Amino acid sequence: MSEVYRVALAGLGTVGGGVARLLLEQKEILLKRCGRPIELIAASDLNEARFDELGLPATVARYQDAREMAEKADADVIVELIGGANGIAHDICLTALNRGKGFVTANKAMIAHHGNELAKLAEEKGVFFGYEAAVAGGIPIIKALREGLIGNKISEIYGILNGTCNYILTVMRETGKPFDVVLAEAQKLGYAEADPSFDIDGIDTAHKTCILGALAFGMPIDLKTMSIEGIRFISDADIAFAEELGFRIKLLGVGRRYDNGVSLNVYPCMIPQTAEIAHVDGVFNAVITEGDFVGHSMLVGRGAGERPTASAVVADIADAAMHRGGPLLAVANKEVKPVPVVSLDEREGEYYVRFEVRDRPGVVADISRILGDENVSIASMLQRSQTSGGVVPLIMTFHKSKEKAVVSALRRIEGLESVVSKPCMIRIERL
Amino acid sequence: MSEVYRVALAGLGTVGGGVARLLLEQKEILLKRCGRPIELIAASDLNEARFDELGLPATVARYQDAREMAEKADADVIVELIGGANGIAHDICLTALNRGKGFVTANKAMIAHHGNELAKLAEEKGVFFGYEAAVAGGIPIIKALREGLIGNKISEIYGILNGTCNYILTVMRETGKPFDVVLAEAQKLGYAEADPSFDIDGIDTAHKTCILGALAFGMPIDLKTMSIEGIRFISDADIAFAEELGFRIKLLGVGRRYDNGVSLNVYPCMIPQTAEIAHVDGVFNAVITEGDFVGHSMLVGRGAGERPTASAVVADIADAAMHRGGPLLAVANKEVKPVPVVSLDEREGEYYVRFEVRDRPGVVADISRILGDENVSIASMLQRSQTSGGVVPLIMTFHKSKEKAVVSALRRIEGLESVVSKPCMIRIERL
Repeated sequence: MSEVYRVALAGLGTVGGGVARLLLEQKEILLKRCGRPIELIAASDLNEARFDELGLPATVARYQDAREMAEKADADVIVELIGGANGIAHDICLTALNRGKGFVTANKAMIAHHGNELAKLAEEKGVFFGYEAAVAGGIPIIKALREGLIGNKISEIYGILNGTCNYILTVMRETGKPFDVVLAEAQKLGYAEADPSFDIDGIDTAHKTCILGALAFGMPIDLKTMSIEGIRFISDADIAFAEELGFRIKLLGVGRRYDNGVSLNVYPCMIPQTAEIAHVDGVFNAVITEGDFVGHSMLVGRGAGERPTASAVVADIADAAMHRGGPLLAVANKEVKPVPVVSLDEREGEYYVRFEVRDRPGVVADISRILGDENVSIASMLQRSQTSGGVVPLIMTFHKSKEKAVVSALRRIEGLESVVSKPCMIRIERL
Repeated sequence: MSEVYRVALAGLGTVGGGVARLLLEQKEILLKRCGRPIELIAASDLNEARFDELGLPATVARYQDAREMAEKADADVIVELIGGANGIAHDICLTALNRGKGFVTANKAMIAHHGNELAKLAEEKGVFFGYEAAVAGGIPIIKALREGLIGNKISEIYGILNGTCNYILTVMRETGKPFDVVLAEAQKLGYAEADPSFDIDGIDTAHKTCILGALAFGMPIDLKTMSIEGIRFISDADIAFAEELGFRIKLLGVGRRYDNGVSLNVYPCMIPQTAEIAHVDGVFNAVITEGDFVGHSMLVGRGAGERPTASAVVADIADAAMHRGGPLLAVANKEVKPVPVVSLDEREGEYYVRFEVRDRPGVVADISRILGDENVSIASMLQRSQTSGGVVPLIMTFHKSKEKAVVSALRRIEGLESVVSKPCMIRIERL
């Protein structure tokens, strides 16, 4: 058990730097816990200065070209921390697997887009494939789903999976500032990218949600069937009304198993303030699972950043070194079976809606009549009159209704002369 | 990979029954996920009716004597769900290990008392030893500490580890009823044992805490060095004052690494209501860890019960079947090193104290003078006068102070003629 386990690290950016640091700083601990030395033997980065910046010892072979390293390095495992669904990351993944090397990555985009094919190749080659860091950073959720909860049929899985969105929603609530202002501040602080659409439009959450869905429900990864809503349309008014109604707004990946299939989507939700997950704020992530034996459980932790992500990457490396493997998608590939998609139209749930209406007689009556027509029943209503004739918000929550009916009603209401903009609808989830 | 993995189950009580049910009900899922059939081939119970009650198929060999089964069964793993630190449980554990069989248990008392010796034997024999179900039921915290957080130095670990205590404290808060009444109700509902001392005096929490401490800090399991306080002395008044001051009271196992050693104890804590763990109520358990790379993380789930515990036991069985092992105490035995114990006396923290005082002039002055003498500074004070001359509660919180000084001050204050009972001291932990 004392044979050295050799690691080659592609990409020394934020996360790659963190992994290199962890492997060097915690060498002793890892040796004690893994029963064998874990040694960084090669690393690649376009920026030649990075190797010295990180203080990599002379024993670490330095490459500028990650592809070359993946082809040549005499490593047991190739760790890919370059990112991107295609290009170099995907190339070196294929090279590693074809060479029979173990492979570890934090690349959710690549798993979301190519996970099914990679699972086939990894199984064919009989190699270790780890991607714990791809979902919810430091939270060991992939391990929990593949191993800790192995005896459970998972019926539901929910996740706060994007720290940028959770940070923006938290600051909006704490300060009362509007979305655009908080986003701009988050960009200044480095919590949001210059082009924030990948995060705030829910794409990143969707990548992670489709991976969790595949693991929870035994189905192939399929990004295309998901409905994806981000948080751009959430106004400071919605945040304030949510507080008043006893809710918090969180962007969630939501997966549910029904009798006739599985529903897997991303949307902002109103969550009761009494729910634990309502208190997961700022850059923290959380995943809730409902299993038929284990019941309700929740994992909370930092979702991103150099050190938490490095912690997850190194957990995979240690598993590889200790021969603790398992099928990439939790079951052997022949057992991964497509499951019918239950569309969001079929959702039966509660809803919050904010209308912008002209403050004049008959508006509420018109809206109520359409809702009644569509069999949508009002649970609560909130209206504050301003100067007569002005535009005011009208807030409603609906009792459990079919989403198809709600959407149809809202479309008709939008056509009313006294309704001045598209109604803002947020689903209520009682976790 | 299609060879049958054979399980022998000792004890068909609540948890054993749950494991038998899970193995039968989820046979298909387990086959898909483990890549081989997991089969119950033998079971033991004193109650002969139990085998049919659980609908065990004829292929399961039935034993009345667990020791006989452990000696004879042609199983790959022996699963012990009888309980008790010594006696049968310990005997069949030794038999299983000496026969070179894998071993899985939910028995925290046995691990707390014999874990170090069992770790030696398991390592010597090179067999799998799983005890995920021993701590925090359905929460995969042992796996998280041994595997998911393997790259981290853990500096702190906190846990709500006893569902009975958490249930009692939650109901006291929700109803305002005193401890004795809520305990009696919990006993009627089956949430507390007829003899509740094991739970409410903190022993069960201590068993689990010393296991978590060993895993987090790389030290041997040692119950004897711990300070253990239960919740008997928590009054409805303390619960109410906690709410008023912005806290919740939870019984915690608390482990901390200091420069000069490790502190590992069990006591009730005041936790800010803004902390996530303050919202973990009823029979739920939670474990918070602080790791140097991963940062803050929390796992929440059901801490006990037939089905959550069965989920954890089966996760161990699956790991054994898939050859995913590791050292029992996270590191090889030669690396398990005693660590100096930092006593609670050395704690520097905030404190809540409730005095019962005669409502007459000079009391607060006397108490304040003694606190000043001992260098303990008052952060807040709460006093409500009743009829003059009666006994009233006087609540104080202290700024960060050395526990030794606080204890010394309280001993002196207790001697004052106007103080009618032992002051009730609860540590404040800002998680």
